[in-house]
Amino acid sequence: MSIRIGILGYGNLGRGVECAIRQNPDMELAAVFTRREPENVSILTENSQVVSVSKVEEWKDKIDVMILCGGSATDLPKQTREYARLFNVVDSFDTHARIPEHFENTDKAAKEGGNVAVISVGWDPGMFSLNRMYANAILPEGNDYTFWGKGVSQGHSDAIRRVEGVKDGKQYTIPVEAALKAVRNGENPELTTRQKHIRECFVVLEDGADRVRVEAEIKNMPNYFADYDTTVHFISEEEFKTNHSGIPHGGFVLRSGRTGWNKENNHIIEYSLKLDSNPEFTASVIAAYARAAYRLSKEGVKGCKTVFDIAPSYLSPKTAEELRATLL
Amino acid sequence: MSIRIGILGYGNLGRGVECAIRQNPDMELAAVFTRREPENVSILTENSQVVSVSKVEEWKDKIDVMILCGGSATDLPKQTREYARLFNVVDSFDTHARIPEHFENTDKAAKEGGNVAVISVGWDPGMFSLNRMYANAILPEGNDYTFWGKGVSQGHSDAIRRVEGVKDGKQYTIPVEAALKAVRNGENPELTTRQKHIRECFVVLEDGADRVRVEAEIKNMPNYFADYDTTVHFISEEEFKTNHSGIPHGGFVLRSGRTGWNKENNHIIEYSLKLDSNPEFTASVIAAYARAAYRLSKEGVKGCKTVFDIAPSYLSPKTAEELRATLL
Repeated sequence: MSIRIGILGYGNLGRGVECAIRQNPDMELAAVFTRREPENVSILTENSQVVSVSKVEEWKDKIDVMILCGGSATDLPKQTREYARLFNVVDSFDTHARIPEHFENTDKAAKEGGNVAVISVGWDPGMFSLNRMYANAILPEGNDYTFWGKGVSQGHSDAIRRVEGVKDGKQYTIPVEAALKAVRNGENPELTTRQKHIRECFVVLEDGADRVRVEAEIKNMPNYFADYDTTVHFISEEEFKTNHSGIPHGGFVLRSGRTGWNKENNHIIEYSLKLDSNPEFTASVIAAYARAAYRLSKEGVKGCKTVFDIAPSYLSPKTAEELRATLL
Repeated sequence: MSIRIGILGYGNLGRGVECAIRQNPDMELAAVFTRREPENVSILTENSQVVSVSKVEEWKDKIDVMILCGGSATDLPKQTREYARLFNVVDSFDTHARIPEHFENTDKAAKEGGNVAVISVGWDPGMFSLNRMYANAILPEGNDYTFWGKGVSQGHSDAIRRVEGVKDGKQYTIPVEAALKAVRNGENPELTTRQKHIRECFVVLEDGADRVRVEAEIKNMPNYFADYDTTVHFISEEEFKTNHSGIPHGGFVLRSGRTGWNKENNHIIEYSLKLDSNPEFTASVIAAYARAAYRLSKEGVKGCKTVFDIAPSYLSPKTAEELRATLL
């Protein structure tokens, strides 16, 4: 029998989860739940329903895992708690500083509901966290480095679009090649914000907007751009649509550590991602952890888990025997 | 209380484990067990003993985890089974094709002894396997690539040294840069053996040996070199000692996979290692899994496990709360 998945929230991430379910033969999309009018939401999967979120309780016994596709700022702090009482859930909560609090709240709700909740699933937090953790356990003495990009930062793109005179805008975060190289060489550099990433902006101006002012306003924006070397390119709306409509992302997690009786040997562990679609990759990680949530729940496990708590084999549709024979 | 570690076999790997224990404050070296005369074996750690392997049973209650540092060809198929009856054990069994059989034998012995055995720990099998498995679970439709090097292949170096007229020799396995690049570009190439790796040999000749014959004999050696582009450098014994005494290694595990409703997006997941010392890094992975074996055993778990079966948090000395707050 397939794992019956519910998707709550149908934006880029929700659509990504829908695509991921199609690639996993042991899963099926039971329904998409939306805050919009269901008749206004058209999904890709045939034979699946779009249902108003107000009716979600009726689906308690028809969904094995509910995937929560809301945002971390306001949706998930409420939703994960709420739905972990009804369903096994997976979310992609990514406000790193608030994870401990989100964990406690979710753990309580999931235990009360008798469900499994897996939080902060995706690539950062998620696969990047896992790689930081493994690398730290293996090399206790060393330094960690995380670089993001090349990829689109949604927050920085939003910030550009709030500047007066900007019609549309997109911001790419790009790791500084020289910094990456120094880390890979085992130089263990101490890097400032400016030395790690550059920011490249593509901007479509409103008619008659002052490009000198817009550029200065972007480059001097505190928190977002002031601490970085920022480049601003003004382009036509047509070029913007042709070349900057995707949502690529990626990044690098490195640990440089020493071993040996006198710490004479250096080692570099590097994990990197190069993603054409940030939401589709995040969704693919979530789908694998939905499988894990389903299995853990079948075993009687209850409460909140993170990627650190789940043995890798739970993510794979293969049996333990197949995994040992083919991938070990 | 510290985790009391025993080391069985004191070669490069055993010495690496000894160094790793020193870097993990929650572990202590209880004793090194050897087949040699104990008085002929001198270890680095003060206040630890060297004991004849014939007396290992006397240590049943004085060792929490025994790390088996023998070879995969003949030692481990016997030893892991034998010692899993007495101790929690970790080994680095690396004959991929025989892992299923080794697992079955070890599982039976560990269950009979009431112990935990973790087999095939290191980087390949080990961390490379883990990364293959995670990447396959995340991207079900795609291709896997493993490249090894740049690094010393012990087996190929041994093969060189068996050629008549060779006094000493070392072989480096080197990934073909163009092949790696094609994979990273998402080209999903099909690669022959020759297209993936080149082999570079450094040879010290015996006095009067025929370098033309030696070179031809190496390059045409079936299984080892005939299927590769091989370079042979003849160097002096002095240069050999100065530049080729280390045991570096490393490699790359990549998965290139597609997502999207029409598989329109490509993603590259890459994990790589650049290691100054192959045995010390392997030993560092083993030390982390020894911690896991200890904890699993404390929880009452019995039987054989692989890296696929163990949740990442078991490897870390940090608590679950610390991990969530600092590495997620």
